[in-house]
Amino acid sequence: MLGKYLDNVRREFPLIHNITNYVTANDVANILLACGASAVMADAPEEAEEITALCSGLCLNTGTLSRDRLSAMLLAGKKANSLGIPVALDPVGAGSSAFRTQSVGKLLSEVRFSVIRGNISEIKTLCGDGGSTRGVDAGPLDMTGTSAALKEARSLWEKTGSVVMVSGKTDVILLGDRYAFVKNGCGLMSKITGCGCMLTALTAAFAAANRDDMFGACLAACALMGVCGETALEKTETNGGGNAAFRDHLIDAVFNMDGQTLERRADYEIY
Amino acid sequence: MLGKYLDNVRREFPLIHNITNYVTANDVANILLACGASAVMADAPEEAEEITALCSGLCLNTGTLSRDRLSAMLLAGKKANSLGIPVALDPVGAGSSAFRTQSVGKLLSEVRFSVIRGNISEIKTLCGDGGSTRGVDAGPLDMTGTSAALKEARSLWEKTGSVVMVSGKTDVILLGDRYAFVKNGCGLMSKITGCGCMLTALTAAFAAANRDDMFGACLAACALMGVCGETALEKTETNGGGNAAFRDHLIDAVFNMDGQTLERRADYEIY
Amino acid sequence: MLGKYLDNVRREFPLIHNITNYVTANDVANILLACGASAVMADAPEEAEEITALCSGLCLNTGTLSRDRLSAMLLAGKKANSLGIPVALDPVGAGSSAFRTQSVGKLLSEVRFSVIRGNISEIKTLCGDGGSTRGVDAGPLDMTGTSAALKEARSLWEKTGSVVMVSGKTDVILLGDRYAFVKNGCGLMSKITGCGCMLTALTAAFAAANRDDMFGACLAACALMGVCGETALEKTETNGGGNAAFRDHLIDAVFNMDGQTLERRADYEIY
Repeated sequence: MLGKYLDNVRREFPLIHNITNYVTANDVANILLACGASAVMADAPEEAEEITALCSGLCLNTGTLSRDRLSAMLLAGKKANSLGIPVALDPVGAGSSAFRTQSVGKLLSEVRFSVIRGNISEIKTLCGDGGSTRGVDAGPLDMTGTSAALKEARSLWEKTGSVVMVSGKTDVILLGDRYAFVKNGCGLMSKITGCGCMLTALTAAFAAANRDDMFGACLAACALMGVCGETALEKTETNGGGNAAFRDHLIDAVFNMDGQTLERRADYEIY
Repeated sequence: MLGKYLDNVRREFPLIHNITNYVTANDVANILLACGASAVMADAPEEAEEITALCSGLCLNTGTLSRDRLSAMLLAGKKANSLGIPVALDPVGAGSSAFRTQSVGKLLSEVRFSVIRGNISEIKTLCGDGGSTRGVDAGPLDMTGTSAALKEARSLWEKTGSVVMVSGKTDVILLGDRYAFVKNGCGLMSKITGCGCMLTALTAAFAAANRDDMFGACLAACALMGVCGETALEKTETNGGGNAAFRDHLIDAVFNMDGQTLERRADYEIY
Repeated sequence: MLGKYLDNVRREFPLIHNITNYVTANDVANILLACGASAVMADAPEEAEEITALCSGLCLNTGTLSRDRLSAMLLAGKKANSLGIPVALDPVGAGSSAFRTQSVGKLLSEVRFSVIRGNISEIKTLCGDGGSTRGVDAGPLDMTGTSAALKEARSLWEKTGSVVMVSGKTDVILLGDRYAFVKNGCGLMSKITGCGCMLTALTAAFAAANRDDMFGACLAACALMGVCGETALEKTETNGGGNAAFRDHLIDAVFNMDGQTLERRADYEIY
C-alpha cells in the first residue's frame, strides 16, 4: 500500500522549494533527487514568492534561522497557501531560544501547514507546553514512548489541522482521528546531522505528489526514511564504515528503493 | 591535446575565489582541490575585492542569491576585471524570478566574463529570449538538441564576448567562430545537486591556469567533468550505490584523472 | 594517556555551539557526532547568547564571515565567558583581508579563548606579525618547521593566555611553558576542505569534556585528527578513492576510534 506513494513521486517528479538551513541543505537536495523529486533552494525575500509559485511543494526549516530567512518563509508560505501548494514545516530548535520559538509561532499563525514534523521537544514547544529542547537532535525525551508523542501530536493537530509527525524510536503520524506508528529506523540516524531535515523534505515531496492523501503521504515518507536507515545500517556495518558512510548509504538507499520493497520492509500500524 | 590544460592546473595550483551558494559550496571546494586548484569562499562585500586580488580566478554563482552576495559579486567582478583575473559566471536559476534575472542582468552589464556556463534555459534568459527555467536543473528543454544550444550560445557571445558553455546531453562551447561539442557525461549527473556549480568552478580554475587559451580551457574543463561522470557511473554501478556515492566518485575521479587519460576518453568535436 | 580525553567526550556527550562557515558546516557537525559530541549551529545575533547558554562548548570560525555572524560571535563569546564555557577560535583567513583581520582582532579583544587553532600564517596575523595568508589552506609557510610555529604560538599565548595550536606538517600545541608536537597526519588532509574547521570543532568538544586540562584536551583532539587522517589514507588508497572518499573515511575513522587505539597510534612529544 505504501509503495504507490513513492511511485507517484517518481512519476510526478515534483519540484520542492526549500527555505532551509545551510548545514544540511546539500543532503536535503540530494535526498530529494534520490526519491524522484528535485529541489530549488532560494531564501531571499525578494524572490521567495515567485520561486514557490514554480514549485509543487514547499519545505520550511528553521535551522540557522535569520530575520531574512524568516521573512522569506512567511512570504513563501502565504503564497503556497494561496496557490494550494502543500507546505511542510520542520521547526528545528523550537524552544531553544526566544527568537526561534517566536519565529515558529509567527509561522504557525500566518501559514497553514499540510504537515509539521519534529522531535517531541519541538512539537511540545509548538503546542505551548514548554518543551526543553536540547539542541536540535532527538534527545532522551524521545524515549518516553509513543503515548506522550501521540498526546502532543493530537494537541498540535487540534491547533493547526496539520498532519503531525513526531520522530522518535517509534515515529508517530497523526491527522484527526487517524494515527500511525512507524517502527523502522536505527540508532545511527541520530549520529548524523540532518536526518530530520531530510525526512521533512521527503514529506514535502510525498505530499506534493499525493495531494489527495496527506496522511498516507506522510506515513509513506516516514516509512521510507526508516527502511532506508536500516538498509544503510547493514551496508555501513558490512563495510566497517561510520556515520559519514552511513549518510551516503542512506541517500543511496532512497535512490535505490522501489515501492514493493518499501511496502514489504515497512513496519507500521495504522489506527 | 586536452591533457595539457589539466596539467597546467596541477602545476599552477590556482587559488579560486568563489562567491557561490551554500547548497553546493562544499562540493565545489572539494572538486577544485581534486583538480589541483584550491578554493577560498568569501561573500562579504567588505572583503570581496581584497580576496579576489589574492586569487588567480573568480567564480560567481547565483544560487541562493541575496542582496549582500550580489553586492560582493559586483565588487569582486570589477576588481577581477581591473586586474585581468578571469571571471566565470554560473547564472543559476536565471529566469526563475525577477530578482534572479535582474541580478544576472546587472552582473552582465557591470562585469566582463571570461566564461558563462548554464543550461539552455538560463542561457536563453541571459540572451533576453525568455527561457522558462524549471528550478535550477537541466530540464527537458536540454533535449532539443545542440542546434538550439548553439544558436543561444552564439547570441550570448555576441552580447558579451565570453566563452559560452551550454550544458545538456551534448555540451556546447562557443567563442566567436569556434565551437565544440562534448558528448561525455551520464544521466546520473542530473541526479545530484551541484554538477553545474562544480563544472563552472572547474572552468574558472582551468581559465586561471590557461590564460592564453580560454576556449581550450573551457573545453578541457567540460570534457574532464563528462569523462569523470562516466568513470563515477561505472564505479557507482559496480558497488550498487546511488546518487550520494556517485557524487563522491565524481570528485574522486577528478582527483585521480591524468592528462593522458582525459585526452583518450574525451569525446569531443571542434569546429 | 590520550585515550581518556576521548573517553570523556563519549561519556559527557557535550553539545557544541558552532558559529561557523557554510562551506564545511556539515562536515563539522558530522565529525562532532562522530567523536561523541553533538552540534548546534545558530548564527543569528538574536539567539546567539541563549543557544550558547544551552551548550558545553563554543566554537567560533571566521570562514564566510559576515557582519551579522561577527555580531553573533561577539555575543556568544562573551556569554560563554560569563558562564565559564570553553571557547575555541578558528581564525580562518585572518590576514587575507582587512575585514577578516579586524574582525579577528575584535574577537581577541572582547572574548577570552580557551584555545586558538590556525595555520602559521593565521597565527602570525593574530600576533600582529603580518602573515601572508594564501587563502585558507596550509601553505608552503607551514614547511618552515616547528621552531617558527613554536615561536608564534608562544607569542600568541603571551597575548591571550589561550592554548595555541599551529597546524602544519608537525602540529604544535602550546600553553605557557608546556608544549607538544604531534607528527600524525597525511598530505591528503590538505586536499579536502575543512580539515582545520573540523579539528577546531573537535578541540572545542574535547575542551568541553575535559575542563580541568585544556592542554591535554587540545593535544588529544589534535592527535585524534592526525591518527584518523592516517587511517583514512590507508582506506582511501586500498579502495582507489580520492579526496571525497578520504573526507568520509576521516569522519568514519573518528567514529570508529577508541581511546586505546588513539594512544597506541598517536605520535607525539610533550615538553
